[in-house]
Amino acid sequence: MQLTGEMLLGASFVRGAAPSFSGVDAATGAELAPAYGGATDEDVARACALAEAAFDAYRATTPAARAAFLRLAAAKIDALGGALTVRACAETGLPRARIEGERGRTVGQLQLFAAEIEEGGWQDVRIDPALPDRAPLPRPDIRLRMVPLGPVAVFGASNFPLAFSVAGGDTAAALAAGCPVVVKAHPAHPGTSELVGRAMRAAVAEAGLPEGVFSLLFGMGEHLGAALVSDARIKAVGFTGSRAGGLALAKLAAARAEPIPFYGELSSINPVLLLPGALAANGGALGKAFAGSLTMGAGQFCTNPGLLFAAPGAGLDAFVETAMQALAAAPGGTMLHGGILAAYERGVTNHAKTAGVETLATGQKADGRASTVLFATEAATFEATPQLAEEIFGAAGLLLRDADAVAIARVLCSLEGQLTITVHMTEADEPLFQKLLPLLERKAGRILINGWPTGVEVCHAMVHGGPFPATTDSRTTSVGTLAIRRFLRPVCYQNFSPALLPSALQDANPNQLWRRIDGVMTAP
Amino acid sequence: MQLTGEMLLGASFVRGAAPSFSGVDAATGAELAPAYGGATDEDVARACALAEAAFDAYRATTPAARAAFLRLAAAKIDALGGALTVRACAETGLPRARIEGERGRTVGQLQLFAAEIEEGGWQDVRIDPALPDRAPLPRPDIRLRMVPLGPVAVFGASNFPLAFSVAGGDTAAALAAGCPVVVKAHPAHPGTSELVGRAMRAAVAEAGLPEGVFSLLFGMGEHLGAALVSDARIKAVGFTGSRAGGLALAKLAAARAEPIPFYGELSSINPVLLLPGALAANGGALGKAFAGSLTMGAGQFCTNPGLLFAAPGAGLDAFVETAMQALAAAPGGTMLHGGILAAYERGVTNHAKTAGVETLATGQKADGRASTVLFATEAATFEATPQLAEEIFGAAGLLLRDADAVAIARVLCSLEGQLTITVHMTEADEPLFQKLLPLLERKAGRILINGWPTGVEVCHAMVHGGPFPATTDSRTTSVGTLAIRRFLRPVCYQNFSPALLPSALQDANPNQLWRRIDGVMTAP
Repeated sequence: MQLTGEMLLGASFVRGAAPSFSGVDAATGAELAPAYGGATDEDVARACALAEAAFDAYRATTPAARAAFLRLAAAKIDALGGALTVRACAETGLPRARIEGERGRTVGQLQLFAAEIEEGGWQDVRIDPALPDRAPLPRPDIRLRMVPLGPVAVFGASNFPLAFSVAGGDTAAALAAGCPVVVKAHPAHPGTSELVGRAMRAAVAEAGLPEGVFSLLFGMGEHLGAALVSDARIKAVGFTGSRAGGLALAKLAAARAEPIPFYGELSSINPVLLLPGALAANGGALGKAFAGSLTMGAGQFCTNPGLLFAAPGAGLDAFVETAMQALAAAPGGTMLHGGILAAYERGVTNHAKTAGVETLATGQKADGRASTVLFATEAATFEATPQLAEEIFGAAGLLLRDADAVAIARVLCSLEGQLTITVHMTEADEPLFQKLLPLLERKAGRILINGWPTGVEVCHAMVHGGPFPATTDSRTTSVGTLAIRRFLRPVCYQNFSPALLPSALQDANPNQLWRRIDGVMTAP
Repeated sequence: MQLTGEMLLGASFVRGAAPSFSGVDAATGAELAPAYGGATDEDVARACALAEAAFDAYRATTPAARAAFLRLAAAKIDALGGALTVRACAETGLPRARIEGERGRTVGQLQLFAAEIEEGGWQDVRIDPALPDRAPLPRPDIRLRMVPLGPVAVFGASNFPLAFSVAGGDTAAALAAGCPVVVKAHPAHPGTSELVGRAMRAAVAEAGLPEGVFSLLFGMGEHLGAALVSDARIKAVGFTGSRAGGLALAKLAAARAEPIPFYGELSSINPVLLLPGALAANGGALGKAFAGSLTMGAGQFCTNPGLLFAAPGAGLDAFVETAMQALAAAPGGTMLHGGILAAYERGVTNHAKTAGVETLATGQKADGRASTVLFATEAATFEATPQLAEEIFGAAGLLLRDADAVAIARVLCSLEGQLTITVHMTEADEPLFQKLLPLLERKAGRILINGWPTGVEVCHAMVHGGPFPATTDSRTTSVGTLAIRRFLRPVCYQNFSPALLPSALQDANPNQLWRRIDGVMTAP
């Protein structure tokens, strides 16, 4: 497939007239053809108008039809094969195995949401039958189901060029809910985005859906995103990216004449508690495993373990020794793009020159690559230096090396919300863990025991979310089937005659849904 | 019970040192003793600190214990008996039957949420068991449940002095979810608030719960509400009131260092479509019934039917005739307080002097009371005059008397979000209704056929919500059991050993919960 540098306004290929840009080979810095024309305000308006025009027809499709569409999209993305891998590897610097794995995850996400649409519980059907003889007043027949919010804007994330980009988690969840999607491609991987966008376009056409179900915009700079979030036809936004960029868009979403939900994943340093029993039993092995989690994908995960808590002792010594050894040997990492590399180096430099912070280990250096770093400090220094709690996106970790139980509790209390908190522990640590658990639940969306936070399973029970600023809306998740709820709202149908009810609400239950009837959960 | 004018900071009775105010007899304008001291910033901070201190213990209570607490609160409010009725009638001008009915609804809401806690589906338990042999990577055990957000601020509404005030819907839903509540009493009914607050305080004590589970603040002016919404310990806000006041608080909630959910119910004019078949068959009867719904409670309902759509004809003539007759005979209504009366009169005056608007009927006039009014205009005038789409809180209605099918669709498209849309129809109207239904679903939280929107059933399938500005969060409802979801967020537990899991997530299912296991809904 020849890349053209054109956007997709529904089914139309359109070359944007705003300033153009190109993909860049992340390893060499070389520009990659073609140039991508940026979307104008008119292009944004056109994509949103098409989405709005498609909405009623799209949401009226049966669950089976929508599931078939998602499976078709999955198959078409899978079929992009080697061309997708080559382009994505070049644009992101990520290795082939990672890109192939991520394609599998992307395909799997679409298929999982297809099954979720068919399962149907997301419709939350509730039926309170009429009570005509109730005194003093009869009760009318009252029924509830979930309906989709409307067109959704999705901002592709740079660090998951497939799984959280054009046809990634946000897109899959919104489409599953019945919402058309307008994607703003991340400018760091336009070619990857074009390939996936064309697969989506083909799936929309082959499924016989209105073209506005999916559009793809290209562009650099803040104006395009702002125009998209501000368009009155957009009814929700999915975003993964920087704290500053996300907060700016969140403010726009809240300041609209009609404020809309903004689901932003902004920042997390993912604390890891190394409790005394675990350190004593496995300090050395944990140090090595930590280094593996920290440096995976050059540390470019939202769930990267950036903050360690440990109390002094032989176990911590062993941890530090193996971690330092592994990190010192770690090769420089190719970052997704120059902006991320520059931000990483700024963050690392700031930490390194902070009073009371020691640089324990530095990885291999290479031109244009990021060296992993492990810093150490005391809990009191951390608490006195708010900047140390800010995310450094990349493979930089900070060890609080005097963190006893009290310090853990105190520091966690003052921390902002997190995507994950990880605890390494043995049975001996259980009393302490039990005391900490309520605090962990308040601070994070996911609590892991004896594992590492990198690697987010896509399943029903996953929560990739958490209190602000991990996300701008802790009531939801961006990974896993519960994410469909972000794009739904309840509607109540009162005193409808049977013939007028949507099929999901009919007594005969033609869609075979789980329902709460008079409050009692009832099998289909 | 002697009223004292004191706040409740947890279990403590405290006289506020900020400027005091008194209740006012709504019918006579006379001040009612005692004076209520306003809460200072220190009082707000104290209430929030107590709520925060109570949170972990309160949320750790078993569903049975929390349900018992809500039932106890219901019993104590019910036992307030005649003293509550007398005071509430005086402060609000509402008749005795209404206050007694509302007490029943308030008690019923608490009992319904007690049953909802026990039913347990709100915990949304999901279990994805470990797949240790999966290739290429094993899956860890992953489980999800909902946990409460934290302390909640509730702003009492003036128009439901019991059912949406101190121990009303927001309070019941938040307490059911496991969130302590800090109530800001509406200054229009402080004595009613004090009585109910004391009942809540007694229930907290008798249930052996930490005192911070419930606090009650008094005060006039904007400062108190702003301080409460801005307190870092508050994690969500429930509000029913004016659009301007709600938007100001919503902005504060969004501008916090940690933005929080703000559930505001701000404005709705509740369109009623009188379709041709219904008008032809029942025009006269509908006119009379409309007048009853419009004037009920002096029109002081969020769901008051403020905008009628009808096409010309004999049916509409009959409707207008009976409506005018009934409205002309309607006695002046005692409004909840002077501010509402003044706002109503301003709104009515503005409508009356708007070019193209005719005053069809005016009710009886009496000093200090509000006269009901029915205006009429053409759809084009309505569309050209945005102010006509603004809510007039009270018994004022506006008829679009040339609204054929096209005009209905066009006007509805341009309308803001609504709590309700009502359709009067017969079988002959079904083709038109089917065409309109997608639009109705997009514009309102509740769609009613052949009924009236006033009177909101408290049940499982109710939605009292809708797109902005009906509410600031269309994904939720403030009435009915689904409201519990507003105060919850998901947490994921990964690789927990059985002994460490919260009881809701244990394999043995000791809490007898519905669960999704590997995605399959499973009975307890």
